Amino acid sequence: MHSAYIEFATLKYCSSCGDAVSKRIPDGDDRHRHVCDGCDTVHYQNPCIVAGSLPVYENRVLLCRRAIEPAYGYWTLPAGFMENGETTEEGAARESREEANVELHSMELYTMIDIPHINQVYIFFRGQMAQPTYSPGIESLEVELFLEEDIPWSEIAFPSVKMTLKHFFEDRKTGNFPVRTDLIKRFRR
Amino acid sequence: MHSAYIEFATLKYCSSCGDAVSKRIPDGDDRHRHVCDGCDTVHYQNPCIVAGSLPVYENRVLLCRRAIEPAYGYWTLPAGFMENGETTEEGAARESREEANVELHSMELYTMIDIPHINQVYIFFRGQMAQPTYSPGIESLEVELFLEEDIPWSEIAFPSVKMTLKHFFEDRKTGNFPVRTDLIKRFRR
Repeated sequence: MHSAYIEFATLKYCSSCGDAVSKRIPDGDDRHRHVCDGCDTVHYQNPCIVAGSLPVYENRVLLCRRAIEPAYGYWTLPAGFMENGETTEEGAARESREEANVELHSMELYTMIDIPHINQVYIFFRGQMAQPTYSPGIESLEVELFLEEDIPWSEIAFPSVKMTLKHFFEDRKTGNFPVRTDLIKRFRR
Repeated sequence: MHSAYIEFATLKYCSSCGDAVSKRIPDGDDRHRHVCDGCDTVHYQNPCIVAGSLPVYENRVLLCRRAIEPAYGYWTLPAGFMENGETTEEGAARESREEANVELHSMELYTMIDIPHINQVYIFFRGQMAQPTYSPGIESLEVELFLEEDIPWSEIAFPSVKMTLKHFFEDRKTGNFPVRTDLIKRFRR
């Protein structure tokens, strides 16, 4: 996981020619962009995908306790910014390895959660653990498998994680796991 | 729709301070990034979401014939780069308005297609047209409703569009439209 926020606050110079940029509406466009005053390059800014997993072992799910901000010390599902050159599923699998040293099989798209005010889309895959084998990566304080009744609901790091867990326990009653879409309008813990 | 490709080729200067950037592995990271030689800002590059729709009116679907490159003159579903501040569904609805002057209701997530070699994820929503009302936007030469037997399969602009249409006509036989995931490994028309 890395911060993709940096760009949004500090786009002052053209990454192509080094000249100053200003905010204006380019020809043929209908919204303000960062445009280079020198070479006219338009520097678009677009939402990022956060790819994650819901690791399942028998009747338990795996959570990681965060060793980094934001939400240090809170519990989360493995997730992070998708990288160029990988698929969403590969991103989710990579984050699961990095944060929890867990290998998943039979991964299935499960939730897609829009968070427009921070320009992010969370995409979670359900994944099965063949063995109860896991350990904390450098971004995790600890990693544990939880029964539903033991989930630390008041200590979940992000609303997208809580939504995904709630869908899962509800859908598990029927054994049907259709893809769920959700919207988070502002950040709440 | 705009080109988000520009950044990938031409990241030479720091958008924060204007100094030169070089490609190196930042501390605590495991891959090469563009890092500023002056202020050490890391300039991450991440996949973009292309949000689109499959507009349906009775037993027909709407396609647009492209007035722009790439694939000028070929038929496509309305789609384009998702913008900051909107949801995936809002992006798909906006593109449908921009390219075909069509209003959709009852939109449902339908396909998510990874295209890792161009750092894109296509996300298509099925949407219903209350009326057969549409017209070409500036990026379209013409817009038409097609019966399945009239789809110009050999003139479809992008593999992601062809996949989405094929899923739709197959799923329509049963009336069940589960979310479909796909992977495109390299560009083919």
